[in-house]
Amino acid sequence: MDLRDHIRDIPDYPKEGIVFFDITPMLSDPDAFRHTIDCLAEKFKDSGATKVVAAEARGFIFGAPLAYKLGIGFVPVRKPGKLPYRTNCVTYDLEYGTDTLCMHEDAVEQGEKVLVIDDLLATGGTAEGMLKLVKQSGGDIVGIGFVVQLGFLNGSEKIKDHEHCFLVEL
Amino acid sequence: MDLRDHIRDIPDYPKEGIVFFDITPMLSDPDAFRHTIDCLAEKFKDSGATKVVAAEARGFIFGAPLAYKLGIGFVPVRKPGKLPYRTNCVTYDLEYGTDTLCMHEDAVEQGEKVLVIDDLLATGGTAEGMLKLVKQSGGDIVGIGFVVQLGFLNGSEKIKDHEHCFLVEL
Repeated sequence: MDLRDHIRDIPDYPKEGIVFFDITPMLSDPDAFRHTIDCLAEKFKDSGATKVVAAEARGFIFGAPLAYKLGIGFVPVRKPGKLPYRTNCVTYDLEYGTDTLCMHEDAVEQGEKVLVIDDLLATGGTAEGMLKLVKQSGGDIVGIGFVVQLGFLNGSEKIKDHEHCFLVEL
Repeated sequence: MDLRDHIRDIPDYPKEGIVFFDITPMLSDPDAFRHTIDCLAEKFKDSGATKVVAAEARGFIFGAPLAYKLGIGFVPVRKPGKLPYRTNCVTYDLEYGTDTLCMHEDAVEQGEKVLVIDDLLATGGTAEGMLKLVKQSGGDIVGIGFVVQLGFLNGSEKIKDHEHCFLVEL
């Protein structure tokens, strides 16, 4: 199955001149969705990971089924103010400005093996933020998985020190 | 397994006098997370549903693995401006004010059997919004599932015309 066939190009979204890659057709097709999760699981089944860490909101759509399939725990990373318990937060650079992500301070244990999952690797800002959060908690990043990579944005520079994979490269 | 043991009470969140029920311990424990998804799947395995509809962000954490487990499609419901293709939106009442949710207009087909999933049933506003969206698209709601119900808020009044279930009642 070519997962590219299940990504819809949306011109001029979120602004003129940008093509947005819409992954909702991949979700709504049962075979494509199953294949996506199974591919990620296959890549990481021998990683020894005990947690999947993923960022809201689209990261949850892939990270949670992957955790379920691998039989390991799931840790949500969210925007400030969205997690109810004590959190660690990191601020990271975007193309214009900065953004902040938070994780519960007890979500990842010292030395715990962790997978970091997101839907899309663009400039790598969000990925870098998640890696910082996991490292702050003492977690050991044993794999990073993205469904889609936008290769021309060179985000893979930010994750090159870790095992990583992409299911679709655009 | 008693899933209540995997819900953490957070006093005075998001504001003083409110107890927030934190489901992240249920996610981070592999057995509890697996049990949660398997319970939902067991309840709806004979529903004939071909799509799971769930709202961002916590709904994705349960809805996406359920769709994966049942081998059916997943449809994200999001806040305005977050979905890239053409959307239908509904505005619904909250305790104070209103909120708006949107779904891609081609996400659910006429007559398609749909499950609506969310983490928590409180006053039922979000659930009502999702039901409206599915009905607008011509979908047939064959089940509604929540991980947690806050019974004292009477949200089940809003969903009583449909098959529904809760895994934990508080």
